[in-house]
Amino acid sequence: MSTVAAIVATSADAPLERGTVTRREVGPRDVLIDIAWAGICHSDIHTVRGDWGAQTYPLTVGHEIAGMVAAIGAEVTTVAVGDRVGVGCMVGSCRECANCQAGREQYCEKGFTDTYGSRDVDGTVTQGGYSAAVVVDEHFVLSLPAALPFEKVAPLLCAGITTYSPLRRWGAGPGKRVAVVGMGGLGHMAVKLAVAMGAEVTVLSQTSSKRADALAFGAVAHHATSDPAVFTELANSFDLIINTVSAPLDVDAYLGMLDFAGVMANVGAPPEPAAMSVFTLFTNQRSFTGSTIGGIAETQEMLEFCAEHGIVPEVEIIRAEQVNDAWERVLKSDVRYRFVIDAATL
Amino acid sequence: MSTVAAIVATSADAPLERGTVTRREVGPRDVLIDIAWAGICHSDIHTVRGDWGAQTYPLTVGHEIAGMVAAIGAEVTTVAVGDRVGVGCMVGSCRECANCQAGREQYCEKGFTDTYGSRDVDGTVTQGGYSAAVVVDEHFVLSLPAALPFEKVAPLLCAGITTYSPLRRWGAGPGKRVAVVGMGGLGHMAVKLAVAMGAEVTVLSQTSSKRADALAFGAVAHHATSDPAVFTELANSFDLIINTVSAPLDVDAYLGMLDFAGVMANVGAPPEPAAMSVFTLFTNQRSFTGSTIGGIAETQEMLEFCAEHGIVPEVEIIRAEQVNDAWERVLKSDVRYRFVIDAATL
Repeated sequence: MSTVAAIVATSADAPLERGTVTRREVGPRDVLIDIAWAGICHSDIHTVRGDWGAQTYPLTVGHEIAGMVAAIGAEVTTVAVGDRVGVGCMVGSCRECANCQAGREQYCEKGFTDTYGSRDVDGTVTQGGYSAAVVVDEHFVLSLPAALPFEKVAPLLCAGITTYSPLRRWGAGPGKRVAVVGMGGLGHMAVKLAVAMGAEVTVLSQTSSKRADALAFGAVAHHATSDPAVFTELANSFDLIINTVSAPLDVDAYLGMLDFAGVMANVGAPPEPAAMSVFTLFTNQRSFTGSTIGGIAETQEMLEFCAEHGIVPEVEIIRAEQVNDAWERVLKSDVRYRFVIDAATL
Repeated sequence: MSTVAAIVATSADAPLERGTVTRREVGPRDVLIDIAWAGICHSDIHTVRGDWGAQTYPLTVGHEIAGMVAAIGAEVTTVAVGDRVGVGCMVGSCRECANCQAGREQYCEKGFTDTYGSRDVDGTVTQGGYSAAVVVDEHFVLSLPAALPFEKVAPLLCAGITTYSPLRRWGAGPGKRVAVVGMGGLGHMAVKLAVAMGAEVTVLSQTSSKRADALAFGAVAHHATSDPAVFTELANSFDLIINTVSAPLDVDAYLGMLDFAGVMANVGAPPEPAAMSVFTLFTNQRSFTGSTIGGIAETQEMLEFCAEHGIVPEVEIIRAEQVNDAWERVLKSDVRYRFVIDAATL
């Protein structure tokens, strides 16, 4: 066991503070990673605040991790000391069920092990990336392509893969009309990825404040959904809607913008049930679906895709002592578009 | 114009009675059909009762029509006098929009013309199949394969195509696990069609009363959903659920039975919104979708498929004077599985 510096939540509502977490000994298939950069995801806040269930405190969150391999177990073959690597939302799964065997560890029938707040194989609660180091089974360690700037890559491990996976599954590409609802951390990645895939991308956000950014990221259009005429104007206009918003929406209004066989894929997670008229789904055989992160192989594929197409998240780098302010700004959607903690300041 | 015998609704709540409807002159592209058999669909009752909007009375319903061509217009090329033909839920559409051009007249951007209760090209309200004859544009006239028994074929024009279309779209076939929810007029067709496509079919209905029939139709299993343990036992078990039930369901419970990439396709039309947790959709990337009838070309394909595979609806043939009793029995789900009116008794 080792003890490393970390940012720690001591309760659901106290400010984060400096502290430590313990890491297990490096087992035969483990990788010790010196963390360099850790992204801040809205999920970190939801989890600490208890929005998605009670937690055990103290808890260190963070599931967008970029670092360097400091040590490897005797049986590790996929990475070497000194490699730049990443860890996303998963650090374990059963590896035996049909979904795991098919590379869909995120749908492990026994439930995957979350990077933080989850019961680990050794019985301890997993602790996340707002820390100086982490020990992870090599299967869940991603290789970071050299072409990707180290300080910006961490958000790809959650925001990137979460939007890449449904874009790929539902065929975003040339000739496809893709709308992205909400342009925050996930949404801005969805725009960049869909544009790189060759799709015609439209951004739908509440106000026009991010219009210039949307167009700069390659979107062909931006509409402010505060104007209800937008929904009439864009009726039957899209093949795919990626909804990154966690707040409740008028689902029927959004579904009405889907053309034949169109799909509305939700990657935001509203706590309330989503409700819609089945008649809205009858028209054009529209579908309403969800998607969560991606498998490990697909995450690696996404990293290679980003390297090839020069796609990086827009980030604002902060020091450890700024993390509480950063969380406040995330809650106010006052970030363009992802905070990344410089782990050297821990 | 001609006047023909019909069964007529004079108001939303009066019993049906004998009367007449008028039919337009046979235009250059029209087909005059002497109706032989007319299926009774639950939609007929919903429409007359005003459940789906106010109607103009008197109204004759019926959109499962089998008959014989009695006359054709000068430009008609696809059918000849004496042919056995069918008419389903549509008698017109714009023919020009992208959906019409693609053979998806049911999603015509201007709205298709319903076989009854809809504004026709000549400004009159369309009148349906509970009548002795009908005049229909040849594009909306289906050819009935000789292998299909004339007196049983009518329900294929609505119940058949409504279930065939989503089964085809979502890949029902060998290796696919298909559940059919509700085994009424639509459900029993869904079972027979999915079995003929090679899928492994399970029936989910409220009670066990139709278990023997389900197995006789080729289903491998039948479960009574009155037992809540069924939902646990069948978690992650299906690739496709065809929901033929119009009553509200616990959507999350049904979605929970879908395996990776599974789809719940609704062909029943509940008036209430459907509600579900987005988290249920996250798991296994499940989708919730709808489908309504099918295009004309797809309907013809379905008829050929049924002829090839020897698939016919289970029908109970009635005389015109039994129609009010039959409607009462439909409302009580007391029919195995479709009533067909012998139009010779009008």
